[in-house]
Amino acid sequence: MSYANPTRRELANAIRFLAIDAVQAANSGHPGMPMGMADIAEVLWRKYLKHNPAAPDWVDRDRFVLSNGHGSMLLYAALHLTGYELSIDDLKGFRQWQSVTPGHPERGLTPGVETTTGPLGQGLANAVGMAMAERLLAARFNEPGFDIVDHYTYVFLGDGCLMEGVSHEACSLAGTWHLGKLIAFYDDNGISIDGHVEGWFTDQTAMRFRAYGWHVVERVDGHDPQSIERAIDEARGERDRPSLICCKTVIGHGSPNRAGSHDVHGAPLGTAEVAATRKHLGWNHGPFDIPDPIRDAWDARSVGRDRNMVWRTLFEAYRTRFPEKASRFELRLHGSGDERSADAIATLLEESEWFEQTMATRKASQKCLELLVSRLPELLGGSADLAPSNLTMVSASHAIEAGAGNGKSNYIHYGVREFGMAAIMNGLALHGGFVPYGGTFLVFSDYAKNALRMAALMHLQCVYVFTHDSIGLGEDGPTHQPVEHAAMLRMIPGLNVWRPADAMETAFAWAAALETTNSPTAMLLSRQNLPPLARTAHARANICRGGYVLSEAAGGTPDVILIATGSEVELALIAQAQLAGEGIDARVISMPSTTAFDRQPPEYRAAVLLPGVRRVAVEAAASDFWRKYVGLSGAVVGLSHFGESAAAAILYEQFGITASEIVNAVRRTLDVEFETVD
Amino acid sequence: MSYANPTRRELANAIRFLAIDAVQAANSGHPGMPMGMADIAEVLWRKYLKHNPAAPDWVDRDRFVLSNGHGSMLLYAALHLTGYELSIDDLKGFRQWQSVTPGHPERGLTPGVETTTGPLGQGLANAVGMAMAERLLAARFNEPGFDIVDHYTYVFLGDGCLMEGVSHEACSLAGTWHLGKLIAFYDDNGISIDGHVEGWFTDQTAMRFRAYGWHVVERVDGHDPQSIERAIDEARGERDRPSLICCKTVIGHGSPNRAGSHDVHGAPLGTAEVAATRKHLGWNHGPFDIPDPIRDAWDARSVGRDRNMVWRTLFEAYRTRFPEKASRFELRLHGSGDERSADAIATLLEESEWFEQTMATRKASQKCLELLVSRLPELLGGSADLAPSNLTMVSASHAIEAGAGNGKSNYIHYGVREFGMAAIMNGLALHGGFVPYGGTFLVFSDYAKNALRMAALMHLQCVYVFTHDSIGLGEDGPTHQPVEHAAMLRMIPGLNVWRPADAMETAFAWAAALETTNSPTAMLLSRQNLPPLARTAHARANICRGGYVLSEAAGGTPDVILIATGSEVELALIAQAQLAGEGIDARVISMPSTTAFDRQPPEYRAAVLLPGVRRVAVEAAASDFWRKYVGLSGAVVGLSHFGESAAAAILYEQFGITASEIVNAVRRTLDVEFETVD
Repeated sequence: MSYANPTRRELANAIRFLAIDAVQAANSGHPGMPMGMADIAEVLWRKYLKHNPAAPDWVDRDRFVLSNGHGSMLLYAALHLTGYELSIDDLKGFRQWQSVTPGHPERGLTPGVETTTGPLGQGLANAVGMAMAERLLAARFNEPGFDIVDHYTYVFLGDGCLMEGVSHEACSLAGTWHLGKLIAFYDDNGISIDGHVEGWFTDQTAMRFRAYGWHVVERVDGHDPQSIERAIDEARGERDRPSLICCKTVIGHGSPNRAGSHDVHGAPLGTAEVAATRKHLGWNHGPFDIPDPIRDAWDARSVGRDRNMVWRTLFEAYRTRFPEKASRFELRLHGSGDERSADAIATLLEESEWFEQTMATRKASQKCLELLVSRLPELLGGSADLAPSNLTMVSASHAIEAGAGNGKSNYIHYGVREFGMAAIMNGLALHGGFVPYGGTFLVFSDYAKNALRMAALMHLQCVYVFTHDSIGLGEDGPTHQPVEHAAMLRMIPGLNVWRPADAMETAFAWAAALETTNSPTAMLLSRQNLPPLARTAHARANICRGGYVLSEAAGGTPDVILIATGSEVELALIAQAQLAGEGIDARVISMPSTTAFDRQPPEYRAAVLLPGVRRVAVEAAASDFWRKYVGLSGAVVGLSHFGESAAAAILYEQFGITASEIVNAVRRTLDVEFETVD
Repeated sequence: MSYANPTRRELANAIRFLAIDAVQAANSGHPGMPMGMADIAEVLWRKYLKHNPAAPDWVDRDRFVLSNGHGSMLLYAALHLTGYELSIDDLKGFRQWQSVTPGHPERGLTPGVETTTGPLGQGLANAVGMAMAERLLAARFNEPGFDIVDHYTYVFLGDGCLMEGVSHEACSLAGTWHLGKLIAFYDDNGISIDGHVEGWFTDQTAMRFRAYGWHVVERVDGHDPQSIERAIDEARGERDRPSLICCKTVIGHGSPNRAGSHDVHGAPLGTAEVAATRKHLGWNHGPFDIPDPIRDAWDARSVGRDRNMVWRTLFEAYRTRFPEKASRFELRLHGSGDERSADAIATLLEESEWFEQTMATRKASQKCLELLVSRLPELLGGSADLAPSNLTMVSASHAIEAGAGNGKSNYIHYGVREFGMAAIMNGLALHGGFVPYGGTFLVFSDYAKNALRMAALMHLQCVYVFTHDSIGLGEDGPTHQPVEHAAMLRMIPGLNVWRPADAMETAFAWAAALETTNSPTAMLLSRQNLPPLARTAHARANICRGGYVLSEAAGGTPDVILIATGSEVELALIAQAQLAGEGIDARVISMPSTTAFDRQPPEYRAAVLLPGVRRVAVEAAASDFWRKYVGLSGAVVGLSHFGESAAAAILYEQFGITASEIVNAVRRTLDVEFETVD
């Protein structure tokens, strides 16, 4: 066979066999989905997708998200064939140590991979965020005749994505927001890992999505290029509603003995079945051998360069006509941590009158946002239906009303959808142009946990405003009182966590969140009022280090060091005074961010923690976390049980989170030998 | 006004004012929902609900779930008025320290409260589990003419519950399962905390639920008892599909100035508005004053006693006819940790051939289940679409096919719905008659986190089979490799966590999970093979303590103690041998369950950990957690970063989770002074 004029099926088979052979070589992976969605990918990538393989970061490229991320080889094959910097050797390294072709797509590792996927449902939610970002940037920057922001977001997804609850949260919002340029392809193959889905997935998905306000194209033959084209044309023609294209496909299409069964989902076909599939599909080439005519037909470099050039020309004309807007646009899309942002942070940290006021740190956070939101248009706020509690709205906030929002929109009412919010925030950050922040109660960070982890894994600048950060929230009781959450968040690799003790520390926390452009930040904020703490200039200068000497012992080396965070710093200071009355010299360390403190040089940490001096940590949260600072011979005044429903002051008293308990703990600590087990 | 014949509105107003006045007295709480749903509650509780206030644990009572748990005062008011052991003084103690009327309903604290709610959406999912439990028990135990299991599950829910993703997961399954005796009342008041929901919640909810296969009664006037009655009658007439009754209500109904606004959701009305509401509704009684005729009309004690008696009579006839079945039924519903269960556990722990085999602990778990499932019909298994990976199915498993299941059903394909699974498991456990177990990958415990927490808070016996418990899962990469999860789970108060090192420890973990009837257990299981470990009888006898001396040092007090869990115990043993070659005596502690170990008496813990001896912990997971055992002068061989996609063996080597790194850590540890900061 010469493939002088390869058929579309042959072009799709190039994806199939790259996937089959890479999985076979790795002896691990998921061939079924790439084989099932290859025809859809061929149509979308070859006919529609606007992209430039030589410039994967072209800001107006279409976004392509593989929400069913286990089908990673489909994406790698498409990127390779269209001309991205992803060689055949890279494909041969599929799933191997330090290859750029890991088991699931990872953003930042592979050119052209827009988001890290694998945990099902979240890619779809990321795509909703990306489409929202496109919509908002277009509203802000486009001018008549100058649609400098005008691209689609395409997403592949499977049954698993649709079963996950986050698909409900994200797609409900996508419908509400009328995201007409979001086009999703549902790989309706009727198979999930446990087998045929009829026993556990009987949703009428088309009806479900219509209930969300989506445009649905039903019963598309996912192996027929014409049907797929018609569906895409229809979806692109619909500008007011997101589109779901329901593609009937056969998982593992082309495998004579395994197609249509879950056996083909997550394991190599095996040598015999690979050979049989080659024969069945008439693919007479060796593993990783793609005939030139097929390569040529896939190659998108020339077209991509041209399309990118057309856009650049448009943008240059835009720059001529709207120079200020053009430069603001470039700042938004390429810049981060720029001068304007640095100015805003500097202003925030200048001595402010409200630094000296008693207030809840959630209120202090709102004070920070008052200043920041008015100056930094990239800040895109929101809350999971707790705006009046999280205090995430400020006077400069312009909420997106039903529908699209406009050029001023900088606030999203996410509704009661914590996971959807966090995953959409990831999409907004991935798209570029936004630094999203979003609020909920700290205890409900649980609902969003995996999306927080994904933000950390992807190094995204997202800011979580988690208020009501302890038993201090009071009467709402144990379902609303976090205990283990601060520790949970601090243990997510790369997530920055701040629990400020007063208004000034809150300002520094916000400053850190904005300066840290390559990782997410969680702010743990009090519901209850906290007094302003007195600080030396030296102490103030070290807040940014995450832990610092707030109040020095009377003289010389202290007898004990008290470490506290947030609302408990106040208690540590009272305990310090009581201890002084007993002749015990205590140093008080405020530790608003263990994650920042742990990154400080050893000399700094040693100067703060004074190795050899006993330590007592105080936090109205799970005690065990603090052993990393106090060791076995120190003590922790914390919690090892759930909260209860009562006024905050009573809970603190009853649970022994008090100055006198700190004093007792110090006494006990000074009495025991080093390194006994408590 | 005499109320000789109180109107239904007056009866509903009793709920309204108990809620208004209790919130006012507490100066905290949520009056809006009770005021809005009072009329629905009056109809349901007075005309339909089958319950006996004197016997809140009557097994065939209807279940009532308040998924919008912030409206707790509605439930407390209904329980008080119908005659539960909940006095007017209890209501006056609303939200106070150690009252039985906490801010959100708490199961176990208040008679008649079926489940702890507050975190939105989960009550609804609990209700799905309860309705499924009823269905399965009826299929197993009912005989013609003897419907000893025959009750409804009613659930109140709000907009928030419907926005949450878990509502999608649970309701999709409820439709698939044809749970005809599940009846949900949607409080469609158009308000959530951020205001009117149009901006963030535009689902056509009726259509959405029809897409799930539900029966929907639309446009019911939630303030008109006749409409509500008609809707309930229709819903009860529909036996094949769960019903959603969409009730149009006004939040804060009756408050002349606040009704219909979000101001009435979560704050007291205030003295003036309380007075205005009294006037507006013609309620001329003081706070907590309920006129006798109204009390009498609400009192359900007599009717409840009669209905309960009818059931008891039926059950006694059933016992006569089916004595063996009757006694099995009673065992299932009342018993726990009975003799049969003890026998099965004893058999499991007898020397088994497979204890001596190399196998993955997920495989060992399946071996345990092979024995347990065939003997213990209360075990109700499942997996979130990972049955072939979690190995949760065994030969005695009978999966529920599309629809209802039958008397033999003991396995649920939950689909890709981790949160829904865990919340439904809570419902199954709450109903009684089942010990649910369910599987997913450990990393996806994230998705279910808050439901795990709720199980712990409610003291439910649920067992989580979390497989693929570390970087040892290999090529699927960082999205699938847990790092912080073991620590996250161990810090949930009351959750038992086991990470066994070989087949025998896995059996002991299952034994502990079954013996621990008042709290949930998470099993962290390896994907990869682990060798059987040699043990003395003494060591074996102490596995159940969660941590024990697996391999003693050569003689006398060891120089160092190595603590390891799961797949890393093997490495600790190799390191022990290498250290011996250097003249360093090391003791190896296997610590499959820190949560069990921490509950041991101090003498036992000291005998294992030998205070004063340096320690090195080894776990392929977040290091910080282990400081509670090794202190500051010890060391942890663990991870502080995400995983990568590669073969497991390569990851262990590259990340330094190796015997030689343990040896290095020991050397470093023995070199440093006590209590320095690393």
